[in-house]
Amino acid sequence: MTGATRMQGFSTDEHRARVARAQTLMAGDGLAALLLTTEPEIRYFSGFLTRFWESPTRPWFLIVPASGDPVAVIPAIGAPLMARGWLDDIRTWRSPAPEDEGVSLLADTLRERVGASGRIGVPMGPETHLRMPLADWARLRDAAAGLEFCGDGGIMTGLRMRKSAAEIDKIAAACAVADRAFARVPEIVRPGVALDTVFREFQVLCLREGADWVPYLAGACAPGGYSDVISPAGPEPVETGDILMLDTGVMRDGYFCDFDRNFAIGAPAQAVRDAHARLIEAVDAAAAIARPGITASDLFHAMDRIVTGGAGGSDAGRLGHGLGMQLTEAPSLTADDRTVIEAGMVLTLEPGIEVTPGRWMVHEENIVIGRDKTTFLSTRRGPEIAVIGGGA
Amino acid sequence: MTGATRMQGFSTDEHRARVARAQTLMAGDGLAALLLTTEPEIRYFSGFLTRFWESPTRPWFLIVPASGDPVAVIPAIGAPLMARGWLDDIRTWRSPAPEDEGVSLLADTLRERVGASGRIGVPMGPETHLRMPLADWARLRDAAAGLEFCGDGGIMTGLRMRKSAAEIDKIAAACAVADRAFARVPEIVRPGVALDTVFREFQVLCLREGADWVPYLAGACAPGGYSDVISPAGPEPVETGDILMLDTGVMRDGYFCDFDRNFAIGAPAQAVRDAHARLIEAVDAAAAIARPGITASDLFHAMDRIVTGGAGGSDAGRLGHGLGMQLTEAPSLTADDRTVIEAGMVLTLEPGIEVTPGRWMVHEENIVIGRDKTTFLSTRRGPEIAVIGGGA
Repeated sequence: MTGATRMQGFSTDEHRARVARAQTLMAGDGLAALLLTTEPEIRYFSGFLTRFWESPTRPWFLIVPASGDPVAVIPAIGAPLMARGWLDDIRTWRSPAPEDEGVSLLADTLRERVGASGRIGVPMGPETHLRMPLADWARLRDAAAGLEFCGDGGIMTGLRMRKSAAEIDKIAAACAVADRAFARVPEIVRPGVALDTVFREFQVLCLREGADWVPYLAGACAPGGYSDVISPAGPEPVETGDILMLDTGVMRDGYFCDFDRNFAIGAPAQAVRDAHARLIEAVDAAAAIARPGITASDLFHAMDRIVTGGAGGSDAGRLGHGLGMQLTEAPSLTADDRTVIEAGMVLTLEPGIEVTPGRWMVHEENIVIGRDKTTFLSTRRGPEIAVIGGGA
Repeated sequence: MTGATRMQGFSTDEHRARVARAQTLMAGDGLAALLLTTEPEIRYFSGFLTRFWESPTRPWFLIVPASGDPVAVIPAIGAPLMARGWLDDIRTWRSPAPEDEGVSLLADTLRERVGASGRIGVPMGPETHLRMPLADWARLRDAAAGLEFCGDGGIMTGLRMRKSAAEIDKIAAACAVADRAFARVPEIVRPGVALDTVFREFQVLCLREGADWVPYLAGACAPGGYSDVISPAGPEPVETGDILMLDTGVMRDGYFCDFDRNFAIGAPAQAVRDAHARLIEAVDAAAAIARPGITASDLFHAMDRIVTGGAGGSDAGRLGHGLGMQLTEAPSLTADDRTVIEAGMVLTLEPGIEVTPGRWMVHEENIVIGRDKTTFLSTRRGPEIAVIGGGA
């Protein structure tokens, strides 16, 4: 069978340690269980890795009880893959079954593991959602009457923010894939090539360099800078004088990188060269102070001082964020995010600068906070912007 | 700037027609507005196409009022892209801002467009979810007190199930990409090649044949059939005697295909040949009756009679489904889904059969229901399984 190695992406000990940490926090909050519904939440404890989440039809549930192993309550189609992981208690229903889409099985399982009353923590805070229909959520609360569904007190966000050594290794591997792909961009870009071709061929480079798949690629290409960093590509050709930016999140063994690179097509204008150097200066300033005990806000201000003169940011809203099982995770590097930086956090540093009115550039690196030092997981760029092609 | 062509994937007339159809249905249900939060729901009316949804940080909202154009309530980072589309009323907040993540702006906008009271339809039924934190959902209901949030009565599912001619063209283009990629599989598969290499190279083929990106690839490779169709690939080599199945959903201009192909590595056993022929027979039986007026259940039973002798299905739960902006959409071809098939529906026919105990094969085609005839969007396979390599 396929996939056995991927399911062994982590040892059972690693998964058990995650459950133990969760249960310690749950005990402190008086939670009888966690109820999880999204891909990264379920994978964090179970190791269940599949692209099948692309289909919205079927809900998936994981119960983390106050003690003992998690229980998977999932569609039968997922049982063979889940059974290859470390969890033994896997309960299934034949889905789709919209009249009872796992709701009664989930309610029964919760009651069995929790008893007739108890508080069930469900992630409800920033960056979360509940991946089941709202009508079924109401049905569940009826079917599990006596149980109280409440927020998880940020337990999941807190756990996932502090990466283990094994997780950091996987993120580093994803970063290395993107590094190698970025190094090969000059092979696929020249004036006259359509931007959508560049986007396709960059994804090919990522795959050839070891990405399992490429969940995220955005970017821009425009003269002297760009105003939009989230668009898909159109057929417009790359032209001399453009600044090309590619921002990618590749998936490697279940973990993301997330960083970008800028390329000047032909000799860059001085304003572009200066702007790129300022972006690197901002990254350097953040990296210089990045250590356990400072806050996300401190990292923001270190960069914002350089890229806006301390104006307090731009419409992008932040200058970096966590990453890991998802392209973006907590914390956010904003003026107001007081999250204390700790060892094991993996962060992007992502300053943006206005080159000329309406023309922006964004640069992004990935770092990991260690007890004693901060390490770049992406290959740190120098101040000179990369140039593709000759004269302007 | 990039992306302009993609944003013009549909004419403004097409988007206005969608809004008009929604508003007619809303009037029938007494809804003062629809509130939408997910990628396909928002894109359906706005044309807003970006991979930025990969980041879970920021919620996005679209209000479809009882009359007049939709209003986008979105993070400021998305404003330049949204402004390239047809919507004029775009309201933004600087996100992330977890203390008020668009909630008060959304509540104010709803009150402005709806008044002090009214019923706001939110998709709550099968295959939907609410893409915002539950805590913010509670805050919204407080902030918009007076407004009643209720289900959308299946309006969104119903609208999206019936594709326009322009949508069908896009799905056909996605199918053609995958068809060309599948035709080239013999270039990348031979005994000894690791399955994860096959998966990577198949994604390369999809990109080279015109996929914008490859949101879905699953499959399996095992002797004489497989037991799991949702796994990612591991490094195990393809071996003579294996059946390789690749199931892909490529994205092309915002629309998916979703079909698979099986390949025998070396001369297939008679049981495999027979099983493949039965799968095609099942597809033929469904295609033969597929027309407006029958039900999703009729299509299920036409296939189930052939692949199980009428046992009522398997753990896969269904034998096909809708597709379009998402890999899978309503309806589901199950024993119980009484959805009436109508012209404009795009469906997968996806029978599975047990070759020998525990060894399965699944075949999948994509069709569109016309008023007078059903058309295959994928290139219809014949009964003979494709064979890669020579002797067994």
